[in-house]
Amino acid sequence: MRTGATKKEIDGVVQRAESLGFGVQLNQGTDKTVVAILGSNTGQISTDLFAVLPGVEVVTRIMKPYKLAAREFKGKDSKVSIDGIEVGGKRIVVMAGPCAVESEKQLKAAAKAVKKAGACVLRGGAFKPRTSPFAFQGLEDIGLALLKQVREQFDIPVITEVVDPHDVEKVAQYASILQIGARNMQNYSLLTEVGRSKCPVLLKRGLSATIKEWLTAADYLLAEGNEKVMLCERGIRTFEDSTRFSRDIGSIPVIKGASHLPLIVDPSHAAGHYSLVPAMAKAVVAAGADGLLIEVHPNPKEALVDGLQSLTPSDFTRLMESLKLIAESVGRYI
Amino acid sequence: MRTGATKKEIDGVVQRAESLGFGVQLNQGTDKTVVAILGSNTGQISTDLFAVLPGVEVVTRIMKPYKLAAREFKGKDSKVSIDGIEVGGKRIVVMAGPCAVESEKQLKAAAKAVKKAGACVLRGGAFKPRTSPFAFQGLEDIGLALLKQVREQFDIPVITEVVDPHDVEKVAQYASILQIGARNMQNYSLLTEVGRSKCPVLLKRGLSATIKEWLTAADYLLAEGNEKVMLCERGIRTFEDSTRFSRDIGSIPVIKGASHLPLIVDPSHAAGHYSLVPAMAKAVVAAGADGLLIEVHPNPKEALVDGLQSLTPSDFTRLMESLKLIAESVGRYI
Amino acid sequence: MRTGATKKEIDGVVQRAESLGFGVQLNQGTDKTVVAILGSNTGQISTDLFAVLPGVEVVTRIMKPYKLAAREFKGKDSKVSIDGIEVGGKRIVVMAGPCAVESEKQLKAAAKAVKKAGACVLRGGAFKPRTSPFAFQGLEDIGLALLKQVREQFDIPVITEVVDPHDVEKVAQYASILQIGARNMQNYSLLTEVGRSKCPVLLKRGLSATIKEWLTAADYLLAEGNEKVMLCERGIRTFEDSTRFSRDIGSIPVIKGASHLPLIVDPSHAAGHYSLVPAMAKAVVAAGADGLLIEVHPNPKEALVDGLQSLTPSDFTRLMESLKLIAESVGRYI
Amino acid sequence: MRTGATKKEIDGVVQRAESLGFGVQLNQGTDKTVVAILGSNTGQISTDLFAVLPGVEVVTRIMKPYKLAAREFKGKDSKVSIDGIEVGGKRIVVMAGPCAVESEKQLKAAAKAVKKAGACVLRGGAFKPRTSPFAFQGLEDIGLALLKQVREQFDIPVITEVVDPHDVEKVAQYASILQIGARNMQNYSLLTEVGRSKCPVLLKRGLSATIKEWLTAADYLLAEGNEKVMLCERGIRTFEDSTRFSRDIGSIPVIKGASHLPLIVDPSHAAGHYSLVPAMAKAVVAAGADGLLIEVHPNPKEALVDGLQSLTPSDFTRLMESLKLIAESVGRYI
Repeated sequence: MRTGATKKEIDGVVQRAESLGFGVQLNQGTDKTVVAILGSNTGQISTDLFAVLPGVEVVTRIMKPYKLAAREFKGKDSKVSIDGIEVGGKRIVVMAGPCAVESEKQLKAAAKAVKKAGACVLRGGAFKPRTSPFAFQGLEDIGLALLKQVREQFDIPVITEVVDPHDVEKVAQYASILQIGARNMQNYSLLTEVGRSKCPVLLKRGLSATIKEWLTAADYLLAEGNEKVMLCERGIRTFEDSTRFSRDIGSIPVIKGASHLPLIVDPSHAAGHYSLVPAMAKAVVAAGADGLLIEVHPNPKEALVDGLQSLTPSDFTRLMESLKLIAESVGRYI
Repeated sequence: MRTGATKKEIDGVVQRAESLGFGVQLNQGTDKTVVAILGSNTGQISTDLFAVLPGVEVVTRIMKPYKLAAREFKGKDSKVSIDGIEVGGKRIVVMAGPCAVESEKQLKAAAKAVKKAGACVLRGGAFKPRTSPFAFQGLEDIGLALLKQVREQFDIPVITEVVDPHDVEKVAQYASILQIGARNMQNYSLLTEVGRSKCPVLLKRGLSATIKEWLTAADYLLAEGNEKVMLCERGIRTFEDSTRFSRDIGSIPVIKGASHLPLIVDPSHAAGHYSLVPAMAKAVVAAGADGLLIEVHPNPKEALVDGLQSLTPSDFTRLMESLKLIAESVGRYI
Repeated sequence: MRTGATKKEIDGVVQRAESLGFGVQLNQGTDKTVVAILGSNTGQISTDLFAVLPGVEVVTRIMKPYKLAAREFKGKDSKVSIDGIEVGGKRIVVMAGPCAVESEKQLKAAAKAVKKAGACVLRGGAFKPRTSPFAFQGLEDIGLALLKQVREQFDIPVITEVVDPHDVEKVAQYASILQIGARNMQNYSLLTEVGRSKCPVLLKRGLSATIKEWLTAADYLLAEGNEKVMLCERGIRTFEDSTRFSRDIGSIPVIKGASHLPLIVDPSHAAGHYSLVPAMAKAVVAAGADGLLIEVHPNPKEALVDGLQSLTPSDFTRLMESLKLIAESVGRYI
Repeated sequence: MRTGATKKEIDGVVQRAESLGFGVQLNQGTDKTVVAILGSNTGQISTDLFAVLPGVEVVTRIMKPYKLAAREFKGKDSKVSIDGIEVGGKRIVVMAGPCAVESEKQLKAAAKAVKKAGACVLRGGAFKPRTSPFAFQGLEDIGLALLKQVREQFDIPVITEVVDPHDVEKVAQYASILQIGARNMQNYSLLTEVGRSKCPVLLKRGLSATIKEWLTAADYLLAEGNEKVMLCERGIRTFEDSTRFSRDIGSIPVIKGASHLPLIVDPSHAAGHYSLVPAMAKAVVAAGADGLLIEVHPNPKEALVDGLQSLTPSDFTRLMESLKLIAESVGRYI
């Protein structure tokens, strides 16, 4: 409460708290009175409900706004099974492949290369949300069919992005994992549909979303009953422009502490340039992530999308060798 | 090109540019060679197509990535007509009302109050994208029906948000203006549908979108043939936490210089607190925006959503009086 | 306290608080215990002193870290007198002039022009902190002498920057106001010396300082007994690169609410381009600042520093006419 | 140049470039003319000198603003010798110790513990720049004397911060390395003095400085003839508040590519909490930094400054064991 808040104003806050079913306790300081509002669901209530009342200076939330994604909600780490591969355990799961599915030849070359190097999931976008309406938007249905074909032929799970809530069911028939892109992290229609689908899902962090907002978005998926949720960090937007996004490494221990969900990291989108990807990928493994999502293209110079941040198959193979050593040094394997 | 780039590397860049139909000119400096790539569509080409080539140090874009939204594309300012009210002219258009439609009584009280104070559009959300899945999500179809009823009874245009591409046609039947929220600025499925609808649309800036990205998103609407596009600034996310978002006032002259589209500003979401709204609103009018979007609630203390940033009808009436004076002092009117 | 904190852990926190002379009250929630630490100096204590104790989850500060700069510390608005001109009253004080003192001719031309247009303080840097060591660093002592000469000849107070704590006494003999630049906002040796000098001082906000940090830096000046402190907002650094800095307009009402100190705003450094300065300056007056600091150069095309953001005398004169109208419309004058 | 720039305007730009001794080449595109300004010192010239001229739309810098710190300036990696220990080679140099020197007992306990665990430099602040003037400001001269005493007794180099340009000579007599803190990264008086001293120096990155600005600040040190310059990354300020600063891991490969200077990383200040330090430190080693600066306190619960981010000696010892394994896995040692 403000310095000098009246008894009537304090009573107003107490009454609202009680009317919402919360307990209340008053802390009388020398300058100010602080009203503690107690109850296990206070995290889900908007602080505005109290901040609008007369005499209130500021409302500070002690409980977290997310619930189902919180570590406290579940005793142990969540593990997600992808066609038999466990994400969230000792193994660091590497998902790799091109940004966009461009052709049968390209996708098969990529699948062969990344599988040989030790990746256990193939990535590839059929629907490409692009900044400009004049840019290549993906092969769409043809891309989905190619993904399924390659998934079967090479016996490797595939991950692909879904962008429209009405496509969820369809995409889930082709892909092993649905990806929700950074720009759609708070597309709640989409989250709700994917939550209903029960298909494994990778939820990317929005490019300026706080960790709290991201975990609260995961609650949308979990609240619909989909427990196969994986988080994916891909860099945040800051003033620094030497990389495409800033790869905040502190978020890895923060999330592993705050949530039970497996955490995958995408070093390619943060880097924006292939030469920066290996150092970032190594850091991610050392810091304790559960997996990586890396862009690999059989011929980056001819890529239709994001060629600059794609590794060649031989660079990727070399990187995987380094990552295996680092994984071992932190008690894990790839 | 890097210092020491070979003739073969330079030729590689030249060949790619020519194969894409562009002209080329070489600038031989003392340390480096710079390859200028010339053509009026270079803004729509990904810089990666050149950055991946051997010997390239960095690719710098001179042309803008947006085209249809650019001032150069159209000789004069665009004006959008909303049920006979012109946005983008001398009149500063004030849109006001509650964050969410809560009940018939609330919406009618709001409509009456804001119209009396001089607002010419009523705002009110029927679909409310909320951070937490456990929060109030709006009255949905019931809300739409109430908006239409009030629109007719009070003879005031209404603006409401659309969140799902498959709802666009329906919402356009009820509302005078479709609002695309900040979280959906790059929801391209939604943009494409709204672009097809030809209904006037207000495109909010994403909370960490650059002005370039925002204008490029507007290109999605314009490319589908919808010319009734208005932009809406609502604050960006920065490290400063004393306001909900930072209200970057410099964006107003920047956008008025870069684009022909009308610019509305929402001071309520940036402020996050009703006490900060009047100063921000005055600044917006002085800086040259074409309109304001302000949250007004008949009883903010009982608001289900964003009560803290809502003005009461009497505060709004007082603010409108001040805004009229400022509008006059910059040669406009409300 | 963490969920499940033991009685011993809670007692540890209570004991530390009591040993520091604070009162304590326990709030027993359903999931967690919250320990309220009470006392009027809690704002000056590092939260770490409690956060390190076992069982503590998070320490949230309710009291502000600054004290002397806070509105609560002083019943009324501070006013600072500059050679007879009052800053912080009804009059909006405009300080204008070149970024750097370059020559006698340049400074006199600037002084004559800005005074005629209605500015009441002349700005001009003798010491120029520059990003690169190879750039022009200012005329130093010669610049100071020119400032004094022009101050007397044109009977106009002058403001100039001081960068080294050991120069404070000297600069104070020449200037009416000492300016502490954004890069030195937390140069505590400098703050302490300026605090001792009793000369009027303008403290610029650091380019990524929070408002709390800025007001706490002002406490350094006030704690040494200098009460003639003015604040100067000059834009913050964000991801947006279309302006040099983001001019967060919300900071004006926030600071006027949080502190009793006068607030000057510098639209020139935020804009980075002369064409954006007028719109920003108008917004600043409308939003309630107490003054402006504007770069004006007799011949921006020949300026040694920051020519791009400098207004010509005729542009400045035209802007002053507009600002007078806006000032009137908000009940003030220039 | 703007679309439609006249021949006279283009000539004006050409003339200015030639008057500054640069070469010029015109690139005639379909919509615009681009003037290329050529010469090896263009990086040191303010872009404003051209941007102010009529008809200019935007000036884009191709050359970097820093010169001496750039990788191109020196064929090979710089190595700095600290009392016989080489920084910048195969060995990863760990500097550890308390944030502030508090007492002889504390400093000796810290020195003993960190040396035993494998650190090769002791850190400890005698001058503590603190946000609030009411907080502990360091033991100052007594602290310096203690550092020298411990340096000799334990035969370990010490690093300590210098904050006032007039203290540089004195501090250099006590310390093996002078530290320039983040808040002083652009305190040019201080940089110039430290540049003159020839004492090894660790230049911390400002909390919102770009990498370009940071390397340009290093040019101040190098330009005065001090070649013993080491860089220290300590996290940048972003909107994310779950850590004290965001530890942008991408900056490590960026800086190693852009500069020949050794790079040390401070995970403690970025983390803000001891529990996050180990994961960050591991990531830093994996990503290729040349050393670490870690806060270790014999008894963090009693620390006067930054106790929350300090490791205990036993936690530090355990961390060093992990770091040795990771260093090996990337072909280095500790």
